[in-house]
Amino acid sequence: MLKLSRMLPSSSSRHHLLEVLSSRKAQVGDFTYSTGFSTATNNYAAKGYTSDRVSAPYSIYKGKAAFSLSPCLPTFTKLDSGTVVVDRRGSIMMIFMHAIGERKYDWEKRQRFALSATEVGSLITMGPQDSCEFFHDPSMLSSNAGQVRKSLSIKPHANSNGYFVSLTVVNNLLNTKDSFSVPVTTAEFAVMKTACSFALPHIMGWDRITNQQSGGTVGLQPKLASQVLDLEWEK
Amino acid sequence: MLKLSRMLPSSSSRHHLLEVLSSRKAQVGDFTYSTGFSTATNNYAAKGYTSDRVSAPYSIYKGKAAFSLSPCLPTFTKLDSGTVVVDRRGSIMMIFMHAIGERKYDWEKRQRFALSATEVGSLITMGPQDSCEFFHDPSMLSSNAGQVRKSLSIKPHANSNGYFVSLTVVNNLLNTKDSFSVPVTTAEFAVMKTACSFALPHIMGWDRITNQQSGGTVGLQPKLASQVLDLEWEK
Amino acid sequence: MLKLSRMLPSSSSRHHLLEVLSSRKAQVGDFTYSTGFSTATNNYAAKGYTSDRVSAPYSIYKGKAAFSLSPCLPTFTKLDSGTVVVDRRGSIMMIFMHAIGERKYDWEKRQRFALSATEVGSLITMGPQDSCEFFHDPSMLSSNAGQVRKSLSIKPHANSNGYFVSLTVVNNLLNTKDSFSVPVTTAEFAVMKTACSFALPHIMGWDRITNQQSGGTVGLQPKLASQVLDLEWEK
Amino acid sequence: MLKLSRMLPSSSSRHHLLEVLSSRKAQVGDFTYSTGFSTATNNYAAKGYTSDRVSAPYSIYKGKAAFSLSPCLPTFTKLDSGTVVVDRRGSIMMIFMHAIGERKYDWEKRQRFALSATEVGSLITMGPQDSCEFFHDPSMLSSNAGQVRKSLSIKPHANSNGYFVSLTVVNNLLNTKDSFSVPVTTAEFAVMKTACSFALPHIMGWDRITNQQSGGTVGLQPKLASQVLDLEWEK
Repeated sequence: MLKLSRMLPSSSSRHHLLEVLSSRKAQVGDFTYSTGFSTATNNYAAKGYTSDRVSAPYSIYKGKAAFSLSPCLPTFTKLDSGTVVVDRRGSIMMIFMHAIGERKYDWEKRQRFALSATEVGSLITMGPQDSCEFFHDPSMLSSNAGQVRKSLSIKPHANSNGYFVSLTVVNNLLNTKDSFSVPVTTAEFAVMKTACSFALPHIMGWDRITNQQSGGTVGLQPKLASQVLDLEWEK
Repeated sequence: MLKLSRMLPSSSSRHHLLEVLSSRKAQVGDFTYSTGFSTATNNYAAKGYTSDRVSAPYSIYKGKAAFSLSPCLPTFTKLDSGTVVVDRRGSIMMIFMHAIGERKYDWEKRQRFALSATEVGSLITMGPQDSCEFFHDPSMLSSNAGQVRKSLSIKPHANSNGYFVSLTVVNNLLNTKDSFSVPVTTAEFAVMKTACSFALPHIMGWDRITNQQSGGTVGLQPKLASQVLDLEWEK
Repeated sequence: MLKLSRMLPSSSSRHHLLEVLSSRKAQVGDFTYSTGFSTATNNYAAKGYTSDRVSAPYSIYKGKAAFSLSPCLPTFTKLDSGTVVVDRRGSIMMIFMHAIGERKYDWEKRQRFALSATEVGSLITMGPQDSCEFFHDPSMLSSNAGQVRKSLSIKPHANSNGYFVSLTVVNNLLNTKDSFSVPVTTAEFAVMKTACSFALPHIMGWDRITNQQSGGTVGLQPKLASQVLDLEWEK
Repeated sequence: MLKLSRMLPSSSSRHHLLEVLSSRKAQVGDFTYSTGFSTATNNYAAKGYTSDRVSAPYSIYKGKAAFSLSPCLPTFTKLDSGTVVVDRRGSIMMIFMHAIGERKYDWEKRQRFALSATEVGSLITMGPQDSCEFFHDPSMLSSNAGQVRKSLSIKPHANSNGYFVSLTVVNNLLNTKDSFSVPVTTAEFAVMKTACSFALPHIMGWDRITNQQSGGTVGLQPKLASQVLDLEWEK
């Protein structure tokens, strides 16, 4: 533990890597929600380890609970027409855990909340006095609609110096209610906002569009391109 | 429909993917305005599907109408001198559709409005009380100048909690007038601003410049480079 | 001219591409200051046209004068130790031209002003009431020091709705004084700020650092890496 | 010196490259803290010099002292499960030096301070009146805990026009105390904030996640992907 701790230039004893906890060590391999659906045979393999699942959550560990944020990219599918469209939407995955001892958190009873692009939009525009709340029903439109309810709230501290980030999960099927509340400093929230702003175009899939053409069609058919009238006016 | 809906962690019944609509399904292949001019033989093909047209619009579906945003990259052409210059300017393409039923939108009668870099500049600096309006004439400088007029306006809600995004198209050639108005929440507008800020350097083509040299000329001719005086003072 | 003009969805007759002007056409090849020192044999050539010089200035054409902005990347050199260091600093190159007729600008008598990273820092933090001024002496530290003086000023309009961007060049060697002043709208300035913020890490060379390791050292020597103590505490 | 100086379009005699100093020249090779652990055999080598250590610090040289900022990327390690996790955290490395003469700084007695992601979050949200202070103990959790104390403070100038950036290092083992204080202009601080905001997702390792999937798994198994239910609801 010593060795790892020395790698963490942290000014506060409250900040510790999940990996520090010996009880968690074996489960780090499970901590791969962010890229759980990537395959081992993708085309970037030749460039090194980029074909592997990468786990780099931003984690905030506090006395009673912890949560982490990690971008979860969209998946795409190719239509018969050759067009690639979004299959599953991207999100920022939040994972909450209860503290179960000194620097120990309960990975088994973790709860998830996936922020959509628009919910990320709410988060990144919050001012110091603003609050927001999101409601998710994982069984929406199924026969179990309304049986599980999740709500995430972000509320400012009384002194405007940070926020409380809280998740409540009510599961009527299991007859359980689970709550987490994590105080977040202004600095930690700034990291969340900057990282989420960075990730937003990626979870929307826009990076796929902007990367695509930039090495591609340049001048291959300049004549044809010249003949293209403004797209706006076409049907 | 059930399966797809469960993939959408949405807190509101108003948000639905275009793909959910069975009547739209067959037309998703047409929904490729953003990359309609990329070719199938570009040099990124070896890296996977990046050679295909990618469609990842940010869509806002409301009761009476919907619109989507998608970056439309510039095209380039190579001059005899070897310099690559912008051929057709990039834009953020907006597509508006009328609602024609429960979660159904009329793709056939869609209208387009392509935001230029400077118009994107207006959008991303709007404060909660600001409004803006853009006028386009697709036939500008042709014999039909003034026959078709498009205006896009973005106006704040009375309570400063979001905006109305409206498009009006007056076509004197067809003797038609078409109007769309879509209420946009603060969170949705934040996504629009962040995504447009991300896309702006790409629609300007600046990503081509910054990507170019960064893996390129480094130290190939250090001596020559050292002799280069400050570019500013050269003619 | 018609064809090109129809490609420009511009709401104002003041915005026109340099390429529209027939008198400029032949000189577009000269308009390559931004990447004038890239070589034709760089390693990206296999990816398409990225080895060529790319010109994609953001240009603001007004009645009496015009200017354009374009990122000018740093060059690097490799030391005997194997470390790559910055050789010539990056900048945002501004080029000013006088109007010499309807939509014609005088490329021959253009003047340049290269914004350093810190000057870009001034520009991107300007509020609507702020102004700034930069002074350059191209002959600084030579025997001609003080003979040529360039000053760039950015001053807000009286109504806070945009800025005047002005360049003055006093050349005592040639006994000349040249002045340009271009009114810039709030939207145009927003494009300048967003594009310059995007370009800033690139002209600093930080993109070279962040791109480098991200496909590189991952896990090649996990044991060794684990033994590395915090860099901060090393000498 | 003349030649190099002419490459610096600086408006102030206070800004000078480290490389200008002949006494530093031979030590530039040591100035590679930012990428000191990259290997010479990484997979990007074929693309040019990107396999080499790149040094591109943002340096602020003032009369009594100087400091530089440079991103220090995280290192990763691959678990047996195939998942790649962060091994050593990334940071923004600050290096302080005392002035020891006209444009000369003492590289031998430099002191380091590595800003964590959360400390970067503090820096990038600072308003013109805000201040912050960070404390590091390099020997934290070892038998030498408390023997060396480093504190970095950023405090606004009395006139709100910039900041003082100060580092104090108290070493009880060597019985020394070392202090540096560097005045920073608003423009220089804007560069620091913009560059740190750019670097933040990279030092968190999020760029590894967003780069990964974007050329990868697209549509390789569209059927399988379609069957994947929302990650949020899975255990």
